[in-house]
Amino acid sequence: MTNTELWYTEEYSDHIRFSYRVTGLLYRKKTKYQLLEVLETPEFGRLMLLDGKVMITQRDEHIYHEMITHPAILLHPQPKNILVVGGGDGGSVRELIKHKQVERIYLVEIDEDVLDICKEYFPELTASLSDSRVDVIVQDAAEYISETSERFDIILIDSTDPVGPGPVGPADVLITDDFFDRVKEILTEDGIVVAQTGSPVYHIEYLKSYNKKLSKRYSYVATYLLMVPSYAGLWSLTWAAKTIDPSSEPVRQPPDGLKYYRPELFRAALEMGRLQFWDPPEKAD
Amino acid sequence: MTNTELWYTEEYSDHIRFSYRVTGLLYRKKTKYQLLEVLETPEFGRLMLLDGKVMITQRDEHIYHEMITHPAILLHPQPKNILVVGGGDGGSVRELIKHKQVERIYLVEIDEDVLDICKEYFPELTASLSDSRVDVIVQDAAEYISETSERFDIILIDSTDPVGPGPVGPADVLITDDFFDRVKEILTEDGIVVAQTGSPVYHIEYLKSYNKKLSKRYSYVATYLLMVPSYAGLWSLTWAAKTIDPSSEPVRQPPDGLKYYRPELFRAALEMGRLQFWDPPEKAD
Repeated sequence: MTNTELWYTEEYSDHIRFSYRVTGLLYRKKTKYQLLEVLETPEFGRLMLLDGKVMITQRDEHIYHEMITHPAILLHPQPKNILVVGGGDGGSVRELIKHKQVERIYLVEIDEDVLDICKEYFPELTASLSDSRVDVIVQDAAEYISETSERFDIILIDSTDPVGPGPVGPADVLITDDFFDRVKEILTEDGIVVAQTGSPVYHIEYLKSYNKKLSKRYSYVATYLLMVPSYAGLWSLTWAAKTIDPSSEPVRQPPDGLKYYRPELFRAALEMGRLQFWDPPEKAD
Repeated sequence: MTNTELWYTEEYSDHIRFSYRVTGLLYRKKTKYQLLEVLETPEFGRLMLLDGKVMITQRDEHIYHEMITHPAILLHPQPKNILVVGGGDGGSVRELIKHKQVERIYLVEIDEDVLDICKEYFPELTASLSDSRVDVIVQDAAEYISETSERFDIILIDSTDPVGPGPVGPADVLITDDFFDRVKEILTEDGIVVAQTGSPVYHIEYLKSYNKKLSKRYSYVATYLLMVPSYAGLWSLTWAAKTIDPSSEPVRQPPDGLKYYRPELFRAALEMGRLQFWDPPEKAD
């Protein structure tokens, strides 16, 4: 018997930290792009970290993955061709392949180690990547979208945060004007983009500037919020589309067996996203 | 110049901790009932803690206080007589006195030190307590409700958590069957109870058992969720009433100047409260 306590601590800001009790360090490697770690915890099960930030936990990854995929798919008349930027854990693709309308999914992940390690430690997510409709492409997504001749009905920006504290990883190319312009070019006329846009509490400036860039390019831009305990309790996704209003009715029923997504809950998530509930720190006191 | 870093850490469960950088310990006293502390932090401003748990922060206390008060007040036809159990910081009363229909507010706080210290460190909250409609009563609320001959249109259970980890403080008398029975007796026929029911992530068993006790006694019971960064990101309140459905339309407009509450957001909060989004730990893996 031992009294040793292991804790892993994530920095939410320079002033806030969140710590998990850890029962095992299963994997750690500095890949070509980032520090990749897999931990075992009693509260959230297995965790995958990139550069010291939690990407997925077994306990709550379904919330993020259901909410980045189903709202767009269910509101699109013919979601045939899908691009996933990042998402090497396979969670988003696992949700996408639940829809028979989806014909082709291109997953563009920059870091081959993420793909390999998730296959070993999160097989329940990565199994989806061997679906016959899925193409896994190991490449910088900014490079891929500058070259591709494909057009997409739905584009999911399922990347790491290009925002601190700490190292920002390889996602910094995903917030340039060029990237935004090119995403719009390869999106079909009734296409939908959904991007993970960080914490509405700790990344509020980033979220605002991201929305501004989208609003210059799309008629319908809306941030929606989801409850993810391992993402500071609350996280944001942002919808952008030329013709499809996110508050319109879904055109199809959701697949069976979802644990978080319901059409009513997506409407609630949009309602929460309209809220300016957090004054930036400089206004305090 | 110094490199000393001060951090205050709250335990959300045996396995999860949340830490604030601290720039000052303004007050610390073991009162007759609990450990009372006031801290200064860069991210959340001033904090008041009881037994090592954050009760209020200057940055986000308005979210909790707006949501424990306005939904019930605005759905009640004649909210004249109000009882607040706990709430010695004055935040709930500050919201209640915004409604001219409210004639009398009884605040029953067990710990006189909480009242005194909040007056000194959170005057923007406690100023409300000198409103002519407010009676501040320093007494154990369980004792108070067993004796009072008053009847209330709205009862707010604005207490500390009677649930761990760590010491549970003086709120353990607020979850007995006797307490629930007596609350129902002193509630008018169209009365509404709103209780703070903890984290929907870390106190899920407590939340379920609390709802069960209410469901035995009231026709309308509904948990609703709010986004409170300093309460693990997400917190629950639970509505109980004999005749008033929480999803019915408000009978009045909200007061001006609210920062979080909107009728649409309350509906979204109810929608989120219907979700079983978190499997208990034993089901992980």
